[in-house]
Amino acid sequence: MTERVHVPLEGREYDILIDNGLLARAGEEIASRLGQVRAAVVTDENVATHHLPALLDGLRAAGIEAASLTLPAGEKTKSFTYLQEVVDFALAQRLERRDALIALGGGVIGDLVGFAAGIARRGMPFIQVPTSLLAQVDSSVGGKTGINSAFGKNLVGVFHQPRLVLADTGVLDTLSPREFRAGYAEVVKYGLIDRPDFFRWLEENREDIFAGGSARAEAIAQSCRAKAEVVLRDEFERGDRALLNLGHTFGHALEGATAYDSTRLVHGEGVAIGMALAHRFSARLNQASPDDAVRVEAHLKAAGLPTRIQDIPGPLPDAETLMNFMLQDKKVEGGKLTFILTHGIGQSFIARDVPASEAQGFLRDMLEAR
Amino acid sequence: MTERVHVPLEGREYDILIDNGLLARAGEEIASRLGQVRAAVVTDENVATHHLPALLDGLRAAGIEAASLTLPAGEKTKSFTYLQEVVDFALAQRLERRDALIALGGGVIGDLVGFAAGIARRGMPFIQVPTSLLAQVDSSVGGKTGINSAFGKNLVGVFHQPRLVLADTGVLDTLSPREFRAGYAEVVKYGLIDRPDFFRWLEENREDIFAGGSARAEAIAQSCRAKAEVVLRDEFERGDRALLNLGHTFGHALEGATAYDSTRLVHGEGVAIGMALAHRFSARLNQASPDDAVRVEAHLKAAGLPTRIQDIPGPLPDAETLMNFMLQDKKVEGGKLTFILTHGIGQSFIARDVPASEAQGFLRDMLEAR
Ligand SMILES: NC(=O)c1ccc[n+]([C@@H]2O[C@H](COP(=O)([O-])OP(=O)(O)OC[C@H]3O[C@@H](n4cnc5c(N)ncnc54)[C@H](O)[C@@H]3O)[C@@H](O)[C@H]2O)c1
Ligand SMILES: NC(=O)c1ccc[n+]([C@@H]2O[C@H](COP(=O)([O-])OP(=O)(O)OC[C@H]3O[C@@H](n4cnc5c(N)ncnc54)[C@H](O)[C@@H]3O)[C@@H](O)[C@H]2O)c1
Ligand SMILES: [Zn+2]
Ligand SMILES: [Zn+2]
Repeated sequence: MTERVHVPLEGREYDILIDNGLLARAGEEIASRLGQVRAAVVTDENVATHHLPALLDGLRAAGIEAASLTLPAGEKTKSFTYLQEVVDFALAQRLERRDALIALGGGVIGDLVGFAAGIARRGMPFIQVPTSLLAQVDSSVGGKTGINSAFGKNLVGVFHQPRLVLADTGVLDTLSPREFRAGYAEVVKYGLIDRPDFFRWLEENREDIFAGGSARAEAIAQSCRAKAEVVLRDEFERGDRALLNLGHTFGHALEGATAYDSTRLVHGEGVAIGMALAHRFSARLNQASPDDAVRVEAHLKAAGLPTRIQDIPGPLPDAETLMNFMLQDKKVEGGKLTFILTHGIGQSFIARDVPASEAQGFLRDMLEAR
Repeated sequence: MTERVHVPLEGREYDILIDNGLLARAGEEIASRLGQVRAAVVTDENVATHHLPALLDGLRAAGIEAASLTLPAGEKTKSFTYLQEVVDFALAQRLERRDALIALGGGVIGDLVGFAAGIARRGMPFIQVPTSLLAQVDSSVGGKTGINSAFGKNLVGVFHQPRLVLADTGVLDTLSPREFRAGYAEVVKYGLIDRPDFFRWLEENREDIFAGGSARAEAIAQSCRAKAEVVLRDEFERGDRALLNLGHTFGHALEGATAYDSTRLVHGEGVAIGMALAHRFSARLNQASPDDAVRVEAHLKAAGLPTRIQDIPGPLPDAETLMNFMLQDKKVEGGKLTFILTHGIGQSFIARDVPASEAQGFLRDMLEAR
């Protein structure tokens, strides 16, 4: 049975469909919503090998002949260079303002192609076909698109909602176990933000989710619902939506300090360490019990995720370097640091005035701990 | 006295101020609307020489110390390369989501910097200080921003409204007569779209406008009002706003065919020829009287503007080349050509299904005419 999560944004509402085998139905699902349109697909090398033919077949079955563009895999593809390449591809295909640009891939392809769709002809329809667990539960929902800059991650982009999200759970079979675990960190995040019951359910169902049992699709749908709810409350990230950054201030700094080198750290791993640190930092600031930090770390570890800066292989940055990366991040306003802290599992909150000195002292202690 | 045109877009309303000496008051006008913000200025080489010091002084007078970036002048600056440069500049200045990026220049700088402000941190405040007549009456109003692509002009961009427009009529004194005339073409456009009385007023006041008399500020304010009205009816160009493209389908094709070489043709000149052609084409399609085409051409000629393709110096494109440029333009839907035609002066309308063959035949005849 296809799980359906509806995102009722006024004037830009859309469906997220979650099921095994959706690639084969892609053309049909698109045509029933957008009508007879032209389409073009952008993907990355890894995903192209495994899933591009199936998607093109699925489109062709509904009479949509789509050209495709395959880009290198990896975070470095979220750049101005590839943004221009995708935009030029869409224009070279003569896509018009009602035609569709389709992103087939993980969060990198989704963020990049969504941004390109938001600016080509000042905005054209855009369809997400997320293929990593992270993309299925997080990046493909909510309309935040973008690329990285020399000054920090995701600093350039637009809000541009997809017209449809097709999360085919079958494509996750070819995802590496490491990438699956990384995506799982974002699933855990929804429990930690404001769903203590979901976190408990994850503690009980983690093995089934990893083994590909029935809990997997349910975990994905619950995650999409959780994200969609936050997005509905705050589409343009003026307030509440910042909660989705739980673990990400530390996480992005770690990604920056390791130069987005995915052999050392991938996004979800950075988030896992970041969430563990956020809980520890909250305890140190007397906002939460240290027991919650321990419980969070235990769950992430059981899933095979890193929880300490020292878990990152290779030479580690010092506290000053990490601080500089955090100050470059976009959650800085008027010089003050904004953190997502917590009062306990499922009780996160936005703290807008954490003194930089506290954060730096905390990082120094974390780095010195054995 | 400062003329003020208010653009009451819901949630994003802003003022256009028109007066001599506004640069000196820039800081004050910004601070009273945006509060104590940081700011950075982007301009081009020509404008920097004449007006950057005055603007920086005007900002400093209200306590705003702004860094500035000076780019090469000309249409080629509306590119991905400079888009990235402006975005990086804003980020390097550590501008945050409430700070302001200021465009000091003509339509090129306005379009480029507006686009950069629309994507840096997914949108930051943006202030237009238009310095060409074209920018004061047209490009700085309405929130359309963008760059050019190898596939056509203005094909990449976002809608991002400015927070304030400061049109200092004094800065026009350093504008070349040729650029002033080019901007005047867009003033005439508002009369031709739907204001026959304004067109008649222009016929009577043209000399005073060119001489810098009191009619000048009035013509600018009337033009801003006319444009703001259209934008209010259709912010995202789904319908009516297309009327603003009167003269532009032909004009853009001519700009493309002359490779945006401003020694041969500048935007407003392309628009002048385009408007003359649109009136002639309308007459040929039995939509308007040929007398109106003659009256439009007479007025444009009196202002020193070109009205025929043959008025462009250098080797001319053939009809096929011009058609190809038109087909690349964004007003193509479902393969049909959209033109702004007219039933007479001040009676323009959107024609969505002009056969390409008619347009090509018309262009061939125009090119063969002596
Ligand atoms: N827009 C948002 O709201 C949002 C939210 C969270 C994360 N993100 C972004 O998402 C990105 C991370 O996403 P990601 O983890 O999916 O990274 P990714 O796109 O790089 O994918 C990870 C790796 O898995 C491969 N892959 C993906 N699907 C596969 C499949 N089915 N089979 C085999 N290999 C597959 C990819 O080729 C890549 O090598 C980051 O850039 C992050 O900033 C965005
Ligand atoms: N966004 C919109 O809605 C919109 C509308 C119309 C036109 N446009 C765009 O505007 C651009 C054309 O604008 P433009 O004609 O202002 O071009 P421009 O910005 O290139 O300016 C024309 C020339 O005048 C110089 N200049 C400008 N102000 C001056 C001053 N006060 N003193 C001396 N020199 C000065 C510039 O350096 C340049 O050399 C095109 O790219 C067009 O696509 C956009
Ligand atoms: Zn994330
Ligand atoms: Zn124009």
